[in-house]
Amino acid sequence: MTRHDRPLILSLFEMGSVVHLSPGTWTHPEDRRHGVDSLSFWRELGGILEQGRFDQLFLADVVGAYDSAEDGLRSPVSQGYQIPALDPLILLGALAESTDHLGLAATFSTTYEPPFAFARRLATLDALSEGRIAWNVVTSYLKNAAQNFGLPDQVQHDTRYEIADEFLDVVYKLLLGSWDSDAVLGDTQTRTWADPDKVRYIDHKGRHFSVRGPHLVAPSPQRLPVIFQAGSSLTGMAFAGRHAEVVFLGGNSPEAIRANVETIKSHAAASGRDPDQLRFLAAAQVIVAPTEEQAHAKAAEIDRCRSDWAALQKNGRIPGLERYPHEELVADIIRRRDPGHEILIRGWREGQRVKDLRGSAGAGGRARNGLRVVGTGAQAADALTHWAHESGLDGFNIGNQISFGTIRDFVELVVPVLQRRGLARTEYTPGQTLRERLLGAGPGPHSTHPSSRYLDPSNLKLPAAPFGARLTPA
Amino acid sequence: MTRHDRPLILSLFEMGSVVHLSPGTWTHPEDRRHGVDSLSFWRELGGILEQGRFDQLFLADVVGAYDSAEDGLRSPVSQGYQIPALDPLILLGALAESTDHLGLAATFSTTYEPPFAFARRLATLDALSEGRIAWNVVTSYLKNAAQNFGLPDQVQHDTRYEIADEFLDVVYKLLLGSWDSDAVLGDTQTRTWADPDKVRYIDHKGRHFSVRGPHLVAPSPQRLPVIFQAGSSLTGMAFAGRHAEVVFLGGNSPEAIRANVETIKSHAAASGRDPDQLRFLAAAQVIVAPTEEQAHAKAAEIDRCRSDWAALQKNGRIPGLERYPHEELVADIIRRRDPGHEILIRGWREGQRVKDLRGSAGAGGRARNGLRVVGTGAQAADALTHWAHESGLDGFNIGNQISFGTIRDFVELVVPVLQRRGLARTEYTPGQTLRERLLGAGPGPHSTHPSSRYLDPSNLKLPAAPFGARLTPA
Repeated sequence: MTRHDRPLILSLFEMGSVVHLSPGTWTHPEDRRHGVDSLSFWRELGGILEQGRFDQLFLADVVGAYDSAEDGLRSPVSQGYQIPALDPLILLGALAESTDHLGLAATFSTTYEPPFAFARRLATLDALSEGRIAWNVVTSYLKNAAQNFGLPDQVQHDTRYEIADEFLDVVYKLLLGSWDSDAVLGDTQTRTWADPDKVRYIDHKGRHFSVRGPHLVAPSPQRLPVIFQAGSSLTGMAFAGRHAEVVFLGGNSPEAIRANVETIKSHAAASGRDPDQLRFLAAAQVIVAPTEEQAHAKAAEIDRCRSDWAALQKNGRIPGLERYPHEELVADIIRRRDPGHEILIRGWREGQRVKDLRGSAGAGGRARNGLRVVGTGAQAADALTHWAHESGLDGFNIGNQISFGTIRDFVELVVPVLQRRGLARTEYTPGQTLRERLLGAGPGPHSTHPSSRYLDPSNLKLPAAPFGARLTPA
Repeated sequence: MTRHDRPLILSLFEMGSVVHLSPGTWTHPEDRRHGVDSLSFWRELGGILEQGRFDQLFLADVVGAYDSAEDGLRSPVSQGYQIPALDPLILLGALAESTDHLGLAATFSTTYEPPFAFARRLATLDALSEGRIAWNVVTSYLKNAAQNFGLPDQVQHDTRYEIADEFLDVVYKLLLGSWDSDAVLGDTQTRTWADPDKVRYIDHKGRHFSVRGPHLVAPSPQRLPVIFQAGSSLTGMAFAGRHAEVVFLGGNSPEAIRANVETIKSHAAASGRDPDQLRFLAAAQVIVAPTEEQAHAKAAEIDRCRSDWAALQKNGRIPGLERYPHEELVADIIRRRDPGHEILIRGWREGQRVKDLRGSAGAGGRARNGLRVVGTGAQAADALTHWAHESGLDGFNIGNQISFGTIRDFVELVVPVLQRRGLARTEYTPGQTLRERLLGAGPGPHSTHPSSRYLDPSNLKLPAAPFGARLTPA
């Protein structure tokens, strides 16, 4: 059940914004987030992560403001709460150039933009990065996002997932079905760049999209960038089971996480996939120092810089959170697992400094949403390993508390311990794609992943699969 | 009238495709376009251009295949004719990282994607590159492009420009009206990231778009990337007069170009703009060597590698060109100035090796579509200067004939001559934005440009300007 025989997946959870999940910590004297819109910020961060042999940088995203509280834009703008926020696909283009091995994951919503253009950007990134790209599929949850794309309000939750299913189907057809892997010849003798018998229209006509093709990018190293997903509503977990290769889970205890892991694996199996071809990450906040005392002092200093979200919320000024009365919050976390809500709750809970409610993370660890560890490098390594063991997790999506202090500490103090224990890689494997590194198999999607059907172009002619149906051929 | 007192604008016209405008030259033994989907290709190209102190790299784009001939995809795919083609916005993200001073222009169509997401990508690029971005506004012309975005056929020509006007209006509102230039405070004492009184919704409701805002990116160095445009239909020239800061002109002679320059300037004046705030480029093909004989030998070798488009066209296999009977072509070039058609014609004429029909470009120069020069560096410098003088051009958009041979020759043999004559810069000015370099004024759009009205946020409340109307406030 545990995967202690192989390295933990190490991911940094980030965003092109001054505040991702730790409001106010940009005021810490050592914090560097004033430079978040400069290439030097991302270049330095990428260098730290490659020094620590991280698997990936995982960029969150929203396409609107958290303006649903009474004061509208005032709180998110004054706090810098996920606004301004740089476009993650553009950031990945720059990071592809400034890093050599790091996996690069961007969040992109299937609800508002056309799949043809996105598929091209995704494939362009995978080609340029030589196979280091992942796509975190989201469906968006902010009313303001809908209003930025011509809609009066959010698309209803289940309809968003229906659109997402079809959006993914279009992307699969374009990236795997439109060009054969050996279509490009580049033959100077016959003066043939590509074999026209191996390139075709997809002629997708579905309920939400009509896309002729052909795809505009030749097959990239992974064909399809690795599919990430973070949905933990019932619909979201079924969706993850159908599509996701890496799942970013919520959950306040190892037991809660294990339940989600098992649910998603059973969804994967039910849709014909090999459940061993999924990987699971949870959030972790890790504050480490050479001694435990120093770590706690550091954590206390960071906490002093956090915005007092409780007070803001009392005044009705936390964007979106007026929907969450304090006493209902915990039940709500467990009941509703929409990723958007979880992110809000995570930020809020952090700010509230609520007592831990369930579980414990071992030495130095406390469970909030995901894992919070304060201690030495060895204690953090113990806690991460313990949580992974207890929950069936494959790794962690680690948040920056201050930039770049906490992640640099992690690289300098935790990674070497994990490396000594054989739980973190000491070198990258040259030429390995992100999927090969994360899943231990080939560069392209697994044969049981629903995208793989389109490697046989005759499957392009099948009618579009209905929402939620098995996507693998009968 | 002439601008010999200031450097010529030097631009490289490129595309993320094995073939941009010179079909078949990828078969040349020295050509490097096999690597067009690798970062090392673009890094090396950027380095050559910065060595030559070029103003910019200008990326063309299409969002569909040239499949309107009888054989559909066969000819464009086998020739690699603008397919595959990498996404230019992603390429610019990588180039922002691999270059330091080069201007970076991407083509993007206003017809198929939502303006909110594009505005964010554009502003992200401008922020990360520290103000080196330009946007070449196009409306698309391929039927296949429309089919990739859910439409049965092209949007009608004038409607495309109507959409483009509104798309630009939305982009202007987001980039100039939504955030005041001094909105971001980053004040650790008051714990205020941005002043909420200086950030606002745009609440755009027009015929084609409804966009609430706020814009998601804080003001970038240029606020609005430099607006390029290449339309030379009657509608396109009026559009250029309203919006464009740099116009890429067709025309087979200095006189024809001068007429277009004057037409567009008069459109600019009629819409309240300062016509001196526009710059004009034409295409140039430059093949140079230390001696004239070597240059002609080089040109002959390149021409031998070109695809025989005449024969292909005879067989009805040049995509799109079946609409252009040979005998009507010249009249058609003059009559119809749709940029899409011009690009097709340019490729076709090159392949046909037609005799020059009008005008001459001075020593070593011959007029095709734009200028073709074969000769020594001094002869090329003479021809470029002569054409700029005769036509009122500010500079040239130079095509790669073989990569990177011809552009490296240009940098090594033509640029030093222009530099000695004071017609090319010898150093970049550190910290200068692209707009400052091209237009010699401030980093933001000129006060008479229609975007500038939104620096006064009260103008956000005005009704959307009707198509073709003056956009400056009364």
